[in-house]
Amino acid sequence: MNPTIELLKSHRSIRKFTDQKIPPELLRELIRAGQCAASSNHVQAYSVIHVIDPDNRRRIAELAGGQDYIAECADFLVFCADMRRSTDAAERAGAEVTRGMTEQLLVATIDASLMAQNVAIAAESEGLGLCYIGGIRNNPAEVSEILKLPEHVYPVFGMCLGYPDQTPEIKPRLPVEAILRQDYYADTRDEELVAGFDRTMNEYYRLRTGGNKDTTWSEQLKPLFTAKLRPHMREFLRKCGFEMK
Amino acid sequence: MNPTIELLKSHRSIRKFTDQKIPPELLRELIRAGQCAASSNHVQAYSVIHVIDPDNRRRIAELAGGQDYIAECADFLVFCADMRRSTDAAERAGAEVTRGMTEQLLVATIDASLMAQNVAIAAESEGLGLCYIGGIRNNPAEVSEILKLPEHVYPVFGMCLGYPDQTPEIKPRLPVEAILRQDYYADTRDEELVAGFDRTMNEYYRLRTGGNKDTTWSEQLKPLFTAKLRPHMREFLRKCGFEMK
Repeated sequence: MNPTIELLKSHRSIRKFTDQKIPPELLRELIRAGQCAASSNHVQAYSVIHVIDPDNRRRIAELAGGQDYIAECADFLVFCADMRRSTDAAERAGAEVTRGMTEQLLVATIDASLMAQNVAIAAESEGLGLCYIGGIRNNPAEVSEILKLPEHVYPVFGMCLGYPDQTPEIKPRLPVEAILRQDYYADTRDEELVAGFDRTMNEYYRLRTGGNKDTTWSEQLKPLFTAKLRPHMREFLRKCGFEMK
Repeated sequence: MNPTIELLKSHRSIRKFTDQKIPPELLRELIRAGQCAASSNHVQAYSVIHVIDPDNRRRIAELAGGQDYIAECADFLVFCADMRRSTDAAERAGAEVTRGMTEQLLVATIDASLMAQNVAIAAESEGLGLCYIGGIRNNPAEVSEILKLPEHVYPVFGMCLGYPDQTPEIKPRLPVEAILRQDYYADTRDEELVAGFDRTMNEYYRLRTGGNKDTTWSEQLKPLFTAKLRPHMREFLRKCGFEMK
């Protein structure tokens, strides 16, 4: 296992950080490393908002469901899917542009995600810790307003960055057999593999909490799909100009 | 700049590969590294189809717009957004599940993208080259049929993997000032920055082609947004059970 793969496999979310600041030049270097990820047709359909204002950090922490580390970490970034820059550029070059296509939502969401994962790895390679914040999609319209996002830009997720002040255990993952399939989807073994993973996660939770958290992966998933997680997203995206035509 | 950041910044798409095979154990190791990426609520909403059958490789190469390297590379993977495994697991655990939410489309697309980017970096760290294939979304229904994808699973992109038989130049990226914004989106400098990047890309294209390709970033983008790129995606996703409720 080479050191880069070792780094990838040692990822854990960090939610507690020391007071140490991140040098501004390092932050720019992380973003540049992010930009080197592949991008669909070189569109580079992302923008990153570096939220410095402490009041805005606190407001976003509340809007994301009371995640205080958004206010406390060294730097907080919001990764945005951005179809504005590229469509504006094409328009200035004389194109009669169609916006709001479903494919554009996918391109921008994928572009922003690939880019962010490069930023995450670059950060970890420099000894930083991080935590993705999908919780900004709890109240995406308010977050967009705080960041003054224009039409055709939406906030995909946030990222807390800083020097780690904790070393959480690495969470187990589904067995590779459940993920990597040969030629066809063929899910005949899924139930069995998930049952095994439920036992793995149960052991992980019990050990980590001295027996207090006695649950499984499947149990943990239940509220996510029953409560219609973030039912506002469709309407929010429409209002942002991602009409999903 | 540490070796990992150096690796990230040396990325270029590879479309020509040697005959050297990828050891199966290395491929599994890449997938395991991929699985270590962050996942929203630990849902792990992805599956990867390793397309081995040569006929299927050729058919997908055609469906993606005649990209022969899909058939020629050492290994070809299709990364799928998979909301089936996790919702089925929650259902077996007794949840009354709601499927087809827009948020679920986002979660699965983001999860698959973060995971794939880890696979890409792990691959490059082992001296492999790769190329993302968004072109499978040209004919996603046919690709889904070939891979026998069930409902609530859709093919996000492919990835060609192999040992590089070319060393293309690294493509310039937008200046970091155009991507990283402080506190607010504030796009007042975008037009100027894009104009500068158009000059950079023009120089890049001219040098690379001995003057034959005299175009800019903005010009290159024009057909993408005028031709209503992949207008079938909305209906395709709906048929897959991603109804975007």
